[in-house]
Amino acid sequence: MTGNSLDNNIVKKIKELKNNSGTHSPSVDTIMKECPELVINIDACFLSNPYATDLFMKFLHEDLIDNNRLRDVLEFYPPQNREIAKYISKAINVDQKKIFVGNGAIEIIQGILHNFVQNKICIISPTFSSYYEFVKDGIDIVYFPLLKEEKYLLDPKKYVEFVKKEKPDTIVIINPNNPNGGYLKQEDFFYIISNLDEVNNIIIDESFIHFAYEDIELSQITSEELTDKYSNLIIVKSMSKDFGIAGLRAGYAVMNSEKIDVLLRSGYLWNVSGLTNYFFKVYSEKTFIEKYNVERKKYIMNTSMFLDELKNIKGINVYPSKANFALIEIENGMTSFEFTLDLLVNHGIYVRDCSDKIGLDGEFVRIASRTVEENLQIIKAIKEIICV
Amino acid sequence: MTGNSLDNNIVKKIKELKNNSGTHSPSVDTIMKECPELVINIDACFLSNPYATDLFMKFLHEDLIDNNRLRDVLEFYPPQNREIAKYISKAINVDQKKIFVGNGAIEIIQGILHNFVQNKICIISPTFSSYYEFVKDGIDIVYFPLLKEEKYLLDPKKYVEFVKKEKPDTIVIINPNNPNGGYLKQEDFFYIISNLDEVNNIIIDESFIHFAYEDIELSQITSEELTDKYSNLIIVKSMSKDFGIAGLRAGYAVMNSEKIDVLLRSGYLWNVSGLTNYFFKVYSEKTFIEKYNVERKKYIMNTSMFLDELKNIKGINVYPSKANFALIEIENGMTSFEFTLDLLVNHGIYVRDCSDKIGLDGEFVRIASRTVEENLQIIKAIKEIICV
Repeated sequence: MTGNSLDNNIVKKIKELKNNSGTHSPSVDTIMKECPELVINIDACFLSNPYATDLFMKFLHEDLIDNNRLRDVLEFYPPQNREIAKYISKAINVDQKKIFVGNGAIEIIQGILHNFVQNKICIISPTFSSYYEFVKDGIDIVYFPLLKEEKYLLDPKKYVEFVKKEKPDTIVIINPNNPNGGYLKQEDFFYIISNLDEVNNIIIDESFIHFAYEDIELSQITSEELTDKYSNLIIVKSMSKDFGIAGLRAGYAVMNSEKIDVLLRSGYLWNVSGLTNYFFKVYSEKTFIEKYNVERKKYIMNTSMFLDELKNIKGINVYPSKANFALIEIENGMTSFEFTLDLLVNHGIYVRDCSDKIGLDGEFVRIASRTVEENLQIIKAIKEIICV
Repeated sequence: MTGNSLDNNIVKKIKELKNNSGTHSPSVDTIMKECPELVINIDACFLSNPYATDLFMKFLHEDLIDNNRLRDVLEFYPPQNREIAKYISKAINVDQKKIFVGNGAIEIIQGILHNFVQNKICIISPTFSSYYEFVKDGIDIVYFPLLKEEKYLLDPKKYVEFVKKEKPDTIVIINPNNPNGGYLKQEDFFYIISNLDEVNNIIIDESFIHFAYEDIELSQITSEELTDKYSNLIIVKSMSKDFGIAGLRAGYAVMNSEKIDVLLRSGYLWNVSGLTNYFFKVYSEKTFIEKYNVERKKYIMNTSMFLDELKNIKGINVYPSKANFALIEIENGMTSFEFTLDLLVNHGIYVRDCSDKIGLDGEFVRIASRTVEENLQIIKAIKEIICV
């Protein structure tokens, strides 16, 4: 088989896999199963801190594998939602009655959209597609567009005006936003929530908040405790990204206890695995969290350097991000598909082609920050592709 | 502390834990956390084949742990629902478009009840509580009562007459039924489905079907392939019981592909873990299934002997079961709570007090079959309690 026919074959397969995955990317596992001729070395589509995975694996080995306790976790039913919420309550210092445990944030998003949205939802564009895809039939969706000329950053004043005019019962903000990483400062966030009392559900997805910072200490930011003051606030939190455990499926949400009761009455029995229960137990332990914060800060600094390096490459435009990824625009004439395919086939690097994202006008890809060594390889590969 | 005050303390805690768990039992993990003074040696509340757990752990060690591949499974996103369905399709020989992968059968039950029940659902009583608890507000529930004088067995003719009169759009049968293990023969099952064309959703929960048998070869029974002929049939299948992996969270359902499309459009993205994906991969492999069937048959024979031994104990009445558990009625004057507490505190054996089960009139407990050695201990303990 010549190089050319291999390429054509792969192009076809990748397009097919992408079509089958809807508005998400096929997993590396799926791609490698369908295209065994491909060697993928770096998954920079996947938005997670690999150093946190290392740390969790260390705890898992010591607690469950080295002493043969893994079987117990796999054999028996996990505790119920309210039991696991106790661990999270200890970790984040929020009343356990206000905590819902989810099989990944995605299950929580589905539950919130199906149970609490009444007539109209306001979604920022571009954003994570599930927030509009899972909305039930008959619900109005109105999009607040982030603008290229504003670097896809959210203008709090314009946003509040828009919401007041459109009168949705539910609004969604991802902070930092996916796919661009744009960050809304705490000051601007307070401005929004304190001016939107009339909105029944203010959903704030903080799945990437552990990568954001406002001070040089890189202190952790969260709005979870504000749910005491603002009963319309719903904080959604994936653990996949910051703790590097997407395969485990773990997330939680903080909201008023009446909403938690509604969710638990409608199901969500044994909705997370025994291993996820084990993760939340570890998450509530000071010894783990102290070590995690060291890894978190190391990764933020690594990411910051990576984004700076990307900004120095001519031919791509990097949008402002305080997440662990960057949205970049290809400005050398290549399409985002051509760029993504070149990275995949010739460099073994998998990144997210954003051509299916609503609200992005141009040739965009999203690239995750990985380990220091992997980030250097990504920079090198992009330079080779772009600077020919 | 005297034995007496310890008992009072435990009685209080167990009652509290039970109340907090709704119509389910607190897990052994939860009990041991809240009552560290208790030693629980045997979990006979938990309905699973421990020999199948052994087998799965052996595969897991060889494939993922011994060669350090567990990290990949925990770090990266699992494949999407339709990808994992391919493994199940291979295992059960049903078109992948008709297979929905669930985070345990319980997620599937929730999804089916919320998406497909329109006005009225017919539920057998007694049965697994989620089937009536998760039904949405505004839906009529009608109960078809199993009768003590009929040994809690389902009479197919009476049932069909009842459904034709009540005209529900959805009916649910668990076969074998939980909590009594009553089994509906294939012949009787055909009679029911072939006479109820007018019912939109015939939900058959086959979570315990691997323990049932109709021939001396103990051949595996299933109605999954009948979904081709009967498009109103929905087969729900937990993997927790027969494969002994409740902590993993794995289940699937077979139904017509239009219904699968409705479910997947409303969410269920990355709804099972990387380890569950690994389980389904193994499930599709002949080498695993051949070994599994040996363990399955061994466990059925072990269970059959256990049920016979139980039947020989005077002072309890054992109802007919073709599942891996028995519903027993305490006839020596003790309440089911007293009996359960005595087994737990004085013998370290945890069984299911059925006093909260709708449709059971008397003092009932449900006891699972465990390993040969554990079953002997259970028999010995019950004799000590009952035959004083």
